[in-house]
Amino acid sequence: MNSIINKQKTFKVLEDGFDGSSLSKILSSFIVLLIIANVVAVVLESYAPISQRYHLELYYFNIFSVVIFTVEYFARLWACTEHQDLDESTPTRSRIKYFFTPVALVDLVAIVPFYLAFIIPIDLRYLRMLRMLRLLKLTHYFKGLKLFGDVLKKELPSIGAAVFIVSVLVILSASVMYSVEHNVQPDVFGSIPDAIWWSVVTMTTVGYGDVVPVTFLGKFISIFIMLLGVGIVALPAAMLAAKFGDELRVRRQHLEKEIATALDDGVITSSEKQSIDKICSSMGVSGSELEQIISNYKAQKLPILKCDNCGSDIITSDKN
Amino acid sequence: MNSIINKQKTFKVLEDGFDGSSLSKILSSFIVLLIIANVVAVVLESYAPISQRYHLELYYFNIFSVVIFTVEYFARLWACTEHQDLDESTPTRSRIKYFFTPVALVDLVAIVPFYLAFIIPIDLRYLRMLRMLRLLKLTHYFKGLKLFGDVLKKELPSIGAAVFIVSVLVILSASVMYSVEHNVQPDVFGSIPDAIWWSVVTMTTVGYGDVVPVTFLGKFISIFIMLLGVGIVALPAAMLAAKFGDELRVRRQHLEKEIATALDDGVITSSEKQSIDKICSSMGVSGSELEQIISNYKAQKLPILKCDNCGSDIITSDKN
Amino acid sequence: MNSIINKQKTFKVLEDGFDGSSLSKILSSFIVLLIIANVVAVVLESYAPISQRYHLELYYFNIFSVVIFTVEYFARLWACTEHQDLDESTPTRSRIKYFFTPVALVDLVAIVPFYLAFIIPIDLRYLRMLRMLRLLKLTHYFKGLKLFGDVLKKELPSIGAAVFIVSVLVILSASVMYSVEHNVQPDVFGSIPDAIWWSVVTMTTVGYGDVVPVTFLGKFISIFIMLLGVGIVALPAAMLAAKFGDELRVRRQHLEKEIATALDDGVITSSEKQSIDKICSSMGVSGSELEQIISNYKAQKLPILKCDNCGSDIITSDKN
Amino acid sequence: MNSIINKQKTFKVLEDGFDGSSLSKILSSFIVLLIIANVVAVVLESYAPISQRYHLELYYFNIFSVVIFTVEYFARLWACTEHQDLDESTPTRSRIKYFFTPVALVDLVAIVPFYLAFIIPIDLRYLRMLRMLRLLKLTHYFKGLKLFGDVLKKELPSIGAAVFIVSVLVILSASVMYSVEHNVQPDVFGSIPDAIWWSVVTMTTVGYGDVVPVTFLGKFISIFIMLLGVGIVALPAAMLAAKFGDELRVRRQHLEKEIATALDDGVITSSEKQSIDKICSSMGVSGSELEQIISNYKAQKLPILKCDNCGSDIITSDKN
Repeated sequence: MNSIINKQKTFKVLEDGFDGSSLSKILSSFIVLLIIANVVAVVLESYAPISQRYHLELYYFNIFSVVIFTVEYFARLWACTEHQDLDESTPTRSRIKYFFTPVALVDLVAIVPFYLAFIIPIDLRYLRMLRMLRLLKLTHYFKGLKLFGDVLKKELPSIGAAVFIVSVLVILSASVMYSVEHNVQPDVFGSIPDAIWWSVVTMTTVGYGDVVPVTFLGKFISIFIMLLGVGIVALPAAMLAAKFGDELRVRRQHLEKEIATALDDGVITSSEKQSIDKICSSMGVSGSELEQIISNYKAQKLPILKCDNCGSDIITSDKN
Repeated sequence: MNSIINKQKTFKVLEDGFDGSSLSKILSSFIVLLIIANVVAVVLESYAPISQRYHLELYYFNIFSVVIFTVEYFARLWACTEHQDLDESTPTRSRIKYFFTPVALVDLVAIVPFYLAFIIPIDLRYLRMLRMLRLLKLTHYFKGLKLFGDVLKKELPSIGAAVFIVSVLVILSASVMYSVEHNVQPDVFGSIPDAIWWSVVTMTTVGYGDVVPVTFLGKFISIFIMLLGVGIVALPAAMLAAKFGDELRVRRQHLEKEIATALDDGVITSSEKQSIDKICSSMGVSGSELEQIISNYKAQKLPILKCDNCGSDIITSDKN
Repeated sequence: MNSIINKQKTFKVLEDGFDGSSLSKILSSFIVLLIIANVVAVVLESYAPISQRYHLELYYFNIFSVVIFTVEYFARLWACTEHQDLDESTPTRSRIKYFFTPVALVDLVAIVPFYLAFIIPIDLRYLRMLRMLRLLKLTHYFKGLKLFGDVLKKELPSIGAAVFIVSVLVILSASVMYSVEHNVQPDVFGSIPDAIWWSVVTMTTVGYGDVVPVTFLGKFISIFIMLLGVGIVALPAAMLAAKFGDELRVRRQHLEKEIATALDDGVITSSEKQSIDKICSSMGVSGSELEQIISNYKAQKLPILKCDNCGSDIITSDKN
Repeated sequence: MNSIINKQKTFKVLEDGFDGSSLSKILSSFIVLLIIANVVAVVLESYAPISQRYHLELYYFNIFSVVIFTVEYFARLWACTEHQDLDESTPTRSRIKYFFTPVALVDLVAIVPFYLAFIIPIDLRYLRMLRMLRLLKLTHYFKGLKLFGDVLKKELPSIGAAVFIVSVLVILSASVMYSVEHNVQPDVFGSIPDAIWWSVVTMTTVGYGDVVPVTFLGKFISIFIMLLGVGIVALPAAMLAAKFGDELRVRRQHLEKEIATALDDGVITSSEKQSIDKICSSMGVSGSELEQIISNYKAQKLPILKCDNCGSDIITSDKN
């Protein structure tokens, strides 16, 4: 019995993050600071004068961090059976399922390279890079990212089409420019991969200037590639932004509607609360923000778009 | 009789792509891989060390590809009479009509240069470029592109206006900068075409840095050209993205309505199925995705808008 | 009597452009071609080898163009009294009013420098630039530009605010970078105007690379300026695109509504026709396009969003 | 009694800006011109030949400006007690509250460095930069900025998420590129901070060209970073623009509704006027513009949405 309560507590403390109890907040703050300190440490280590002078300090700090992150990882793996969405038949199955979730893999990547380096020799440069991946552990605390991921997943077909068009455009324009410029600039337009480099640098409008067409025909064709490419490459970002805005609007409407119906009888039942919380977490709205929205709602009596006289609902988009 | 069945089968196998039978899927996968392998081959061939060493292998691979693509081309030309939209009076007329469709021309361009090179001597560089056009054969398998093309066609007047404004701005700013910078930098601002190169490189924000104004007046004017130009050149892309989003939303609504009306009586008749399939293919929704949408629809009983007064259906978003 | 008919005819031939009679179309095509030929001529003239060799031909072509444009200008000035919107008390007043319209001023600018050059000596370089302004005469034939101008005028306050914010950001970041980089790079960051050049080149993401911070502090501050500036400078373009899309949608709805009400009784009265034409011209929809829209409308019986059963109008946005 | 009237007058003259009495307009114009003249003076002073020649003139102008701005500052501090939103129990409390408002702090920053320089020695370069902050005093006169600030505040969570994603992407791609390019280009990719510089310059598409990958692997990875980064960095700007447009539309609807209800009975009561004025000021609509909107409203009888069943008003777009 005792152990179950501990597991529940551990789970709540670890999962609630900045929306939970004060213990939860302190722990979250500590881990977030530790992650940021790790990133700073890796950055500083790459700077020769500092890495030479503070070599030992940085080494011990890394070991300290790995220990903490390892404890955190196993605590999460142990307590994950309390998670609603992982309600498998046996705890082991739940843990295996949790093991393969993106957040758990990110946590694993943050510690495994350290232990692996004892067995297999890993180049220091790549070890450093892998330590940088600890940054991704911050996703635990940014719940608004879920919405971002959802939109991305929904828009995958559109993005796929855009990526396909961009790829075709990049390769074709690279081939054309290679044909035109290769003879005049055999060094910079040495092969089609070189031309692809030019093509991407140009179409993304980065334009370093390390590879530039010099022939009249090359410049003439480049003008069309630039004007066309700029539009095509900017398209996916603009589309994604529009979709993101739409998704946010739809969820906000749902939230408002849920709150409105929940407040209709003056009280918010636990099932109503649950459905509101779900939308909130998907929108990255924290508990305290929700409190404020509800109290605003009560105060202002936000228009639920009922007809003033006859009482029938009239809603711009959705209607009960 | 036998030959007709074969033609139908051939047509279905070729046209259904990744939504068809397993034979269709295998064939599609093979051709897609062959196209990609061709692109990779052309890229590698442009790299001198590889092209010298694997000259023969690459040569035979090209012949192999041309043979396959030629067989595919004539199979499509032969079977195209089964296509609904090409329902001409005689098979020859259907084939002539098919011959001039964009997809058929792309298929032709993929093979003709090889044969032409035996008759007319074509520069190797341009032959390589023409082989790269085989990439466009992938459009057979990306049905979502149709929507993209439709939006582009619809928005042609707006795009035309934008292109006109951009052209005028480019030419005028080039003339101004040529007048201002020509005397100080006669090499880089040698003529108006040189200035146009600067103008496009600047307004698309590529900014290679190969041509940069150096006079005070030139820089002063450039500042306004940059700030103005950036907005103007970005406009068409932003507009197109907005239109694309709108079009997608309208089609989704139509699809939802079609499914809703089709499911109203519990069954989807063949004429209803046909109209749903048409919208799906224009949106790039595959058959299996549609299945899922319909089953979701049945499960959730997605809201359909009904008239408040008499209860009949009205097309628009959602209502319980 | 005879003279009045001629004036009306002249007016119609000149004003109708590509939507008018075949005479009007031929004349419009001729003038558009002449304008483009003038632009090409100025571009070629800036290229020394060509301007030396074809000096005389280009000179005579210029005189020929000026004569044609002068005749066109006075014909428009003479016939402008037929214009509905210029319905002043006396013809002279109408002509004075027309004289100061943007299109008339553009026509004047296209010819005046040529005559002025006989009186005042103008530098050849600037004369060439002024001749380039003939390009603006094309605005006569691009009626879709009116919509663009309308949106711009409507959004002037927002654009003003954006320009103000961008200016403040540019000047402040220039001052900061000047303070930081001046001592290390006294040549490139010589004064605040030099730093403003860096600031605009950076914030518009043009990034020539002619002026780049080299100190650690300079780079550190630049990172924030870039990330902030990119967003701020891109804002007005994105906002304008959104507004442009909105305006187009509203006008399309109005057009559809006008056509729907006009077709309700089967006939389009002349007053209805007039109001439809007005919206069409503001949207850049040509006469032939309108014909097609109306015939589509009749064929498809486009949903006027009436309730099928009770007959009351239900419209997403506007309702009669 | 007399003093109170003076205070009220002073407050109105200072606060009304360009929407107030003619005295208010003259004073506002004078201060705006003085601010611009100060900015111009600082810019000119940074240019050595001018600062040497007009040293004294620029010095006296600075003293003159500081005197004016000091008088203005204390006048505002004295009269701020008349402000509605600062309705504290004692005048001193109101003044303390006003002292910490952003506009008051901006006014303070514009004058304090001058006096501080007598006590503490401040480097001339930084003094110049601080004088540039006088530019921010212009925010007093751009009331449309409030809307901008409101949207920014509302969208802080989304912007925070975007900033987080961009930061992670910048740091991770910098680490990768550092690992790959450090050995080949130890000068330009000397440490991770150097790589972060490359990362930001690339992802914002500024692309100076001072740091460019040269290895094949570096270029290969850069291509993905560019294509991905461009989309991600452009996202926040596009989202913000969409939100800004939405906010403007919602406020315009509220304004229209307020005017509609206010005009329903033919007269606009003072409480109605107050609520309309509040929305106007938040949208940056000046008094004279409002007058015009109302008179347009009266003339056109702009459609107000009424309920179909009972005829009462419902807020949303237009309906006859």
